[in-house]
Amino acid sequence: MEFFDAIPLEEALKRLNRVINLRLEYEKVHIMESLGRVVYEDVISPEDVPGFSRATMDGYAVRARDTYGASESLPAIISIAGEVVMGKVPEIQVKPGSGVKIPTGGMLPEGADSVVMIEHTELLDKNTLSILKPVSPGDNIIEKGEDIKQGEVLIGKGSAIRPQDIGALAGVGYTEIKVVKKPVVSIISTGDEIIEPTAPKLEPGQIRDINSYTIGALVKEWGGIPRPLGIVEDTREQLVSALEEALEKSHCVVLSGGSSVGTRDLTQQVVSGMGEVILHGVSVKPGKPTLVGIVRGRPVICLPGHPVSAMITCRLFVKAVLDRFLGRAQKDFSVKLSAHIMRNLASAGGRTHYIGVKLKSEGDKLMAIPIMGKSSMISTMIKADGLAIIPQEKEGVEKGGKVEVCLF
Amino acid sequence: MEFFDAIPLEEALKRLNRVINLRLEYEKVHIMESLGRVVYEDVISPEDVPGFSRATMDGYAVRARDTYGASESLPAIISIAGEVVMGKVPEIQVKPGSGVKIPTGGMLPEGADSVVMIEHTELLDKNTLSILKPVSPGDNIIEKGEDIKQGEVLIGKGSAIRPQDIGALAGVGYTEIKVVKKPVVSIISTGDEIIEPTAPKLEPGQIRDINSYTIGALVKEWGGIPRPLGIVEDTREQLVSALEEALEKSHCVVLSGGSSVGTRDLTQQVVSGMGEVILHGVSVKPGKPTLVGIVRGRPVICLPGHPVSAMITCRLFVKAVLDRFLGRAQKDFSVKLSAHIMRNLASAGGRTHYIGVKLKSEGDKLMAIPIMGKSSMISTMIKADGLAIIPQEKEGVEKGGKVEVCLF
Repeated sequence: MEFFDAIPLEEALKRLNRVINLRLEYEKVHIMESLGRVVYEDVISPEDVPGFSRATMDGYAVRARDTYGASESLPAIISIAGEVVMGKVPEIQVKPGSGVKIPTGGMLPEGADSVVMIEHTELLDKNTLSILKPVSPGDNIIEKGEDIKQGEVLIGKGSAIRPQDIGALAGVGYTEIKVVKKPVVSIISTGDEIIEPTAPKLEPGQIRDINSYTIGALVKEWGGIPRPLGIVEDTREQLVSALEEALEKSHCVVLSGGSSVGTRDLTQQVVSGMGEVILHGVSVKPGKPTLVGIVRGRPVICLPGHPVSAMITCRLFVKAVLDRFLGRAQKDFSVKLSAHIMRNLASAGGRTHYIGVKLKSEGDKLMAIPIMGKSSMISTMIKADGLAIIPQEKEGVEKGGKVEVCLF
Repeated sequence: MEFFDAIPLEEALKRLNRVINLRLEYEKVHIMESLGRVVYEDVISPEDVPGFSRATMDGYAVRARDTYGASESLPAIISIAGEVVMGKVPEIQVKPGSGVKIPTGGMLPEGADSVVMIEHTELLDKNTLSILKPVSPGDNIIEKGEDIKQGEVLIGKGSAIRPQDIGALAGVGYTEIKVVKKPVVSIISTGDEIIEPTAPKLEPGQIRDINSYTIGALVKEWGGIPRPLGIVEDTREQLVSALEEALEKSHCVVLSGGSSVGTRDLTQQVVSGMGEVILHGVSVKPGKPTLVGIVRGRPVICLPGHPVSAMITCRLFVKAVLDRFLGRAQKDFSVKLSAHIMRNLASAGGRTHYIGVKLKSEGDKLMAIPIMGKSSMISTMIKADGLAIIPQEKEGVEKGGKVEVCLF
């Protein structure tokens, strides 16, 4: 009864990446509005941080060689030539045999190459200091440009901006940054039984639209702008006209619904009539009937109608499309927790299987409790902390066995 | 030289939680604006989802007992009484020995208790069906209220709203939700050497404000509203007046700077003069000199001035304060990855030690490469993917040993 051959997930994602080449424009935003946005081009630092060598401890700026061999029993004695004032250029030079009092963050005076921590000194009198421990050149100071060098790449193109990046941008004097514009994603729900959440009362046989909202929120989370087009009737005419409108006003269209074979056929006919189907059927459970097409250069992603299937395939395919649009750099590691499964799990047999799990720490072990339920039950995803993944080649997992869990 | 005894992190967080009892008001937001917000009170479902029993597969709605014993060699034969139309109440009853064609999502007709998948049937003629495999009552259907029951808690108070929660809210007909108002956090940078990022040129001895921006972005990430008050001079008068203003207009004040002993003393004097110091000195590295006070019932959190110390202690203390303000439910597990450290690491000795690490997958192992550098170097945090934690009781970790890493 299936009119397609399911292909492995990895192959499906490769196909997807091959056909998406759209590069979005940039916009400038204030750094405080840039959290999570994707950097459009390498950010080059226009200045050194710090702009001068400074103390990282309270103490005395000295020449290291004047402290060599110093100990509690045989301290080095130097004369105190003055004090560094915070935020000012010190007017005193440190000459051999002398030192200058300096606070944390103070600018290192000329002649000094290190700072002796105040804890390792004793004042003999107002002008004479006893040093109880030697320092090496560079000790307790940070040199000009040691943190960030003028001309170096501060944040790479494609990075998603984090709080520390915003701090560093401020630190080099940037209060604006070029980020990739947010891709617009049109969202369509199909199905003659689906009605708007705002409907005051349901007739028997009707259900409210869940998928447009889950998908819309996911698109937002991943840095896109969701553009919900509402519910479209399951007819060729309606579908074509909704897609026409969506394609004109967005970078990508996500359609959900059509779990019945008839509707699925219709969707496939419409997409292949308007463009090219590049993917129909993926070896994942739930979510096998996923279809991806390219119409006028834009991806049209048709997700299954069951809310859990729609959510999981959205995480797999729509996320990949947004990453690609944004040029978002992928991490060198996967954010997955390793957990012990709390009951036997049968696998889907030849399909990558995703199961909602609740997580619990027990000592230093992490336990995963599978949330059983049908793929039409959104409540299973509400109770879950993440998805356990049973790889395609595995034949299930026994109670106590290890699974990888990706968090929501 | 330290005028305080450092206490363990856990004890510090306990003290903090004991003194913060402020409960914020709620506001109503549209569900599409609610991502990440904290639910103010238990959300009770006003209706069953689905509102009627429906098919989860394409097939025929039947009485299970009519299929018992059916096989390919000895199929059960039933008469086809009609077809269910999507979104409509079926007008046909399923009587013994009969079945009704039904699409995925269609409403189960009266009399039927299960659905035979179309794959397990053969049409003998227009009105006669051969069933090749038996079903049990409940097979391939989802019953009224099986996903969500009217009156049940759909999303618990204190939950941070996720995409699937938004989908489920739509599914039960809620398009608005009560969330906890965002706490306002005033942010002050102190230090006579600190100047605004917008300054066209730095004088020697000056550095741009990093901390206000890192902290502001962290506050945003955790669901607060940052209210930057800019840079305040290191004098008692200026500090008192900045705190006065901040306390009036926000739920919490975060102050950074004052790494030198003199400034630290001043901050302590000011806070203890205006209220009560509940915490001064924590056994963490970096970040030991952290001070927390309560002034007029509001927390005043003084973080060290070095950008890395400020960021790490902000993650430890300001996050905890915001969680408390928001009543945000804490997870049953900690989101930490286990990784192998790529070089020997000395511990801080009696302090919980945080080190920025870059992560890399190698086969199914995760490797953590420590980013070495001073706690004044924000660049170490830019290069890192997260923080490796060496617990207080450990004396360092050897190359290849395991560390826990919390991600940024």
